[in-house]
Amino acid sequence: MPKLRVHNLTVTQDGFATGPGQRLEAPFGDFPENLHAWMFAAMRDLADGKAGIDVDYIARSEENIGATIMGRNMFGPVRGPWQDESWKGWWGDNPPYHNDVFVHTHHPRPSLTMEGGTRFHFTDQPIETVRDLAFEAAGGKDVRIGGGPGTVQQYLRAGLVDELHMAVAPVLAGRGERLLDHLGDAVSHYRVAEQVTSDTVTHVVLLRR
Amino acid sequence: MPKLRVHNLTVTQDGFATGPGQRLEAPFGDFPENLHAWMFAAMRDLADGKAGIDVDYIARSEENIGATIMGRNMFGPVRGPWQDESWKGWWGDNPPYHNDVFVHTHHPRPSLTMEGGTRFHFTDQPIETVRDLAFEAAGGKDVRIGGGPGTVQQYLRAGLVDELHMAVAPVLAGRGERLLDHLGDAVSHYRVAEQVTSDTVTHVVLLRR
Repeated sequence: MPKLRVHNLTVTQDGFATGPGQRLEAPFGDFPENLHAWMFAAMRDLADGKAGIDVDYIARSEENIGATIMGRNMFGPVRGPWQDESWKGWWGDNPPYHNDVFVHTHHPRPSLTMEGGTRFHFTDQPIETVRDLAFEAAGGKDVRIGGGPGTVQQYLRAGLVDELHMAVAPVLAGRGERLLDHLGDAVSHYRVAEQVTSDTVTHVVLLRR
Repeated sequence: MPKLRVHNLTVTQDGFATGPGQRLEAPFGDFPENLHAWMFAAMRDLADGKAGIDVDYIARSEENIGATIMGRNMFGPVRGPWQDESWKGWWGDNPPYHNDVFVHTHHPRPSLTMEGGTRFHFTDQPIETVRDLAFEAAGGKDVRIGGGPGTVQQYLRAGLVDELHMAVAPVLAGRGERLLDHLGDAVSHYRVAEQVTSDTVTHVVLLRR
């Protein structure tokens, strides 16, 4: 069975995944430090053929992904109705997805075909429907939820996530949007399967029971 | 300079230190599992002369402590005014503190001398005053804040904690009282100095900058 997976979602030691004030110059909002430095370093190491705990997790995140789901805020800083359709994501002409990407938004717009095989689809359907569309597009491979934390939380609350990998950075934020929040009884769907500390972060994996 | 320290405070992977519903039979409230199992196992191992990561943290927690501070809820399940003074803590006649223990409460009562050198003092003074009283009682040694999370949080927010050791258990709660919450700008007083995974938990240490 194909899986719904989350990877490399980095949170502070106090659990925050994004700070307040997300905007064009600050996709993750106002955070004291670059939470994702470990990830970019590990991506470089992976490309250079180096080994390591962080590299292993990055490699796992790229295996067997056939489609992507993300929230509106992960696609861009624009809020409310699109003023025009010039915003094409944070990632330039050739985004790193190379597959169908379903963007949750209350304001659908035509699909967008980018270089390298990435196609953004904009949908206001419920998460269960979007999950089904994404699995169909993935053609038997797994589907990855890219983020942000609010979107991941919706899928977690519904018990739909099969595997979630997060990295806890040794940083405190004090405020922001938490990843593992408002879960209530939904936590009964998951178990903490891994806690592994590297030189940079603590990797944590939740698996569906 | 003597230090104000916190040790062995165990939280779930989603950051909760106590569940809802604290009561006589459930000092930590309704939690899915015994969060502190790692701690009791490590205390036994320490007593048996065994080594290990968890054992090292337990040993550190017992070094050079001259007095203790705790919140009312850590002392007992009684809320509001004391109905009588028969409640003498969760720990029986010989509590494991063996020093002066300052209990924050809006309802002071006479001090209580227990076997083994533990003396409970009940105070409605502000945290700065209680800290000073505890340092005085400690006679040059460090002071340990036992808990609970709400009390530790007050001291953290005021930037008064020199060292905080917490253990993140591979368990999810979904609800309860968080340890690292409502900290806001106070996080600037601290840095995450250690993240170490053992077979049972991830140890995390915050130090005052």
